[in-house]
Amino acid sequence: MLYQVATAALSPADIAFPIRRIFRSQKNAECVLGDVTNIDLAQKNVTIDNAQEIDFDYLVVATGATHSYFGKEDWGIRAPGLKTIEDALLIRKRILLAFEEAENELDEQSRRAKLTFIIVGGGPTGVELAGALRQIAVNEIQKDYRYVDTASARIMLVEANERILKSFHPSLSTHAARDLEKLGVELRLNSRVTAIDEQGVIIGEERIDANNVFWAAGVLASPLGKTLGVELDRAGRVIVNPDLSVPGHPDIFVAGDLASVSNSKNGQLVPGVAPAAMQMGTYVATVIKQEVMSQVRLEDRKPFAYRDKGSMATIGKAKAIADIHGWKFTGFFAWLLWSVVHLMFLITFRSKLFVMLNWGFTYVFHATGARLITGEFKPRIRKFRDVTPN
Amino acid sequence: MLYQVATAALSPADIAFPIRRIFRSQKNAECVLGDVTNIDLAQKNVTIDNAQEIDFDYLVVATGATHSYFGKEDWGIRAPGLKTIEDALLIRKRILLAFEEAENELDEQSRRAKLTFIIVGGGPTGVELAGALRQIAVNEIQKDYRYVDTASARIMLVEANERILKSFHPSLSTHAARDLEKLGVELRLNSRVTAIDEQGVIIGEERIDANNVFWAAGVLASPLGKTLGVELDRAGRVIVNPDLSVPGHPDIFVAGDLASVSNSKNGQLVPGVAPAAMQMGTYVATVIKQEVMSQVRLEDRKPFAYRDKGSMATIGKAKAIADIHGWKFTGFFAWLLWSVVHLMFLITFRSKLFVMLNWGFTYVFHATGARLITGEFKPRIRKFRDVTPN
Repeated sequence: MLYQVATAALSPADIAFPIRRIFRSQKNAECVLGDVTNIDLAQKNVTIDNAQEIDFDYLVVATGATHSYFGKEDWGIRAPGLKTIEDALLIRKRILLAFEEAENELDEQSRRAKLTFIIVGGGPTGVELAGALRQIAVNEIQKDYRYVDTASARIMLVEANERILKSFHPSLSTHAARDLEKLGVELRLNSRVTAIDEQGVIIGEERIDANNVFWAAGVLASPLGKTLGVELDRAGRVIVNPDLSVPGHPDIFVAGDLASVSNSKNGQLVPGVAPAAMQMGTYVATVIKQEVMSQVRLEDRKPFAYRDKGSMATIGKAKAIADIHGWKFTGFFAWLLWSVVHLMFLITFRSKLFVMLNWGFTYVFHATGARLITGEFKPRIRKFRDVTPN
Repeated sequence: MLYQVATAALSPADIAFPIRRIFRSQKNAECVLGDVTNIDLAQKNVTIDNAQEIDFDYLVVATGATHSYFGKEDWGIRAPGLKTIEDALLIRKRILLAFEEAENELDEQSRRAKLTFIIVGGGPTGVELAGALRQIAVNEIQKDYRYVDTASARIMLVEANERILKSFHPSLSTHAARDLEKLGVELRLNSRVTAIDEQGVIIGEERIDANNVFWAAGVLASPLGKTLGVELDRAGRVIVNPDLSVPGHPDIFVAGDLASVSNSKNGQLVPGVAPAAMQMGTYVATVIKQEVMSQVRLEDRKPFAYRDKGSMATIGKAKAIADIHGWKFTGFFAWLLWSVVHLMFLITFRSKLFVMLNWGFTYVFHATGARLITGEFKPRIRKFRDVTPN
């Protein structure tokens, strides 16, 4: 639900929770805050902050993934991605500042650029961000501005494939595309961003002036994978055994987005989605627990089997698509389903209640819950509106 | 309620609200986001971001105050104050990181320093921060740590005066001091911090190792006061006429913490507190409205009269002191009063509801609502705990 933080609907604390607190009652669990800078497979220890070594009997690496700019890493500054709370707060600030600056901008062309948002990548993150952004512009902030019609904001979703949400059934992609277009999001399929600079982007041959570019395209596995010294796939994921252990090291597991593994049930690659990561976590925990309890290594660990419980994506305020075991849902009902499932997976009752109330308020009163511009910012150079009292 | 953000009880969005949104329905009001860099009294215009000039008929300057380090401005980095949302988030991060670092620190002396919090200044902000901090350490996070007893955190409130909360009646100061000490806050009265460095502070002759120093002592008026070119008081406040206008400029007003004015009712200096600022706002608005409506300048503007409705400060979780027209309240009832009044002044019903629910949860479940470490941070150099599996 990071995209809801990025679009000012929720506060970070609504969706995030201290790990240390989760383990409060599990007295054999300890939390150490630090960067793992090295993993020594032979000595069986990890180094933290280049300073502290911690020995292990078993190790589970679950550092996930970040964005890939396909070798154009300098795009990162201009086109932030959405993988962390910090990313979400940065995008929130940029979105809110864009409208502030447009309001005070006299030059028509500059104002258009400030009100143009390019979202690169038509997967669930891109679709959800584009929909939510369009929703704010049209429904929630329009009346707060005097000179700019925020509903004129141009929100463009750029996808290299011939359809958005390509992990879904084509009929759902079509439905989602239609919903997005009805909302006013411009779709550019079969299109690639070939340049991003201060003025905007180049898509194919076309230059589009846009001050706001957000990245929802490439995924790159956490760099920690490399330090293991074992084979990685093209995205940098660790190619693990069917039991999620690192080849040659049965005591070292990789779980979540950093793992590249085939589903033992059908041979297909397990997708990098939250349900798969949660199932991997449970699987690895069970394997370790059984071995520790019985004091022997299981010779035949059952291979990891991914159970696809379905997938969903929201489109704007009260629409979504969902595919649950082949049952396809769209529109308001799919959105209800999405809401219930996402509330369920929030960790505390408090979060569930607060997020539900927040959604309720936003739904009824068209008011976002966390519309704050915080931290440092520098206004861009602009041509000012000449404000004189009447 | 910034101190509640600083101590992870509330999220920024719970207590802050976009100004632009407040004026949504008041169509003759416009918001411009920018830094006022100059005010030209003769030409009657303000300059924004060194670039844009805006003319005015009337001007109200209400930029408030920031902290003063009494000429030791380099203390600012080591001892942040608490005047903005950003300040609160910085202090929150430092508090939460202090416990994280202490948990993993082997050296006894270093751990003590990490768990020592010095709060400079025994006014309401210092008292509320000290109380809330002690409350978290004792009640809310203790069970989450394995090595460190967070309740052993040393929280010291340093006050140069012979009593804390010196704007209150001495009997209330005494009561508050007793409550704080019962909670475990160490009071240092008649004491001055004479140095702050990487290791800690010097109070009088005594050096105290402390990694966490927070500043709640001096108040310095906004630097914008200086650009007016009129007489300022010692704290940099603009000495205004009884109608809050700048001497010689009846169309230019200063309201809030930046104004230095005597109460026309009793000749005493109006204190720099929120109720006074709100009353000044209403007063100036009324003066301007009357003049604009009647198209003439009122020759005899009634002087500004401050009505002291009372003052309050909380001490920890469910205690407070309050002085309402000479009626003195302490303990739980004063805290209830504080809570009701502060809920009332939150701008939206949504904020009122969310803050109330947050307090309820914290009260019942001893769980803070926004315990997040966000943004960049660098671990300090430390001697690590040697963690080995059992």
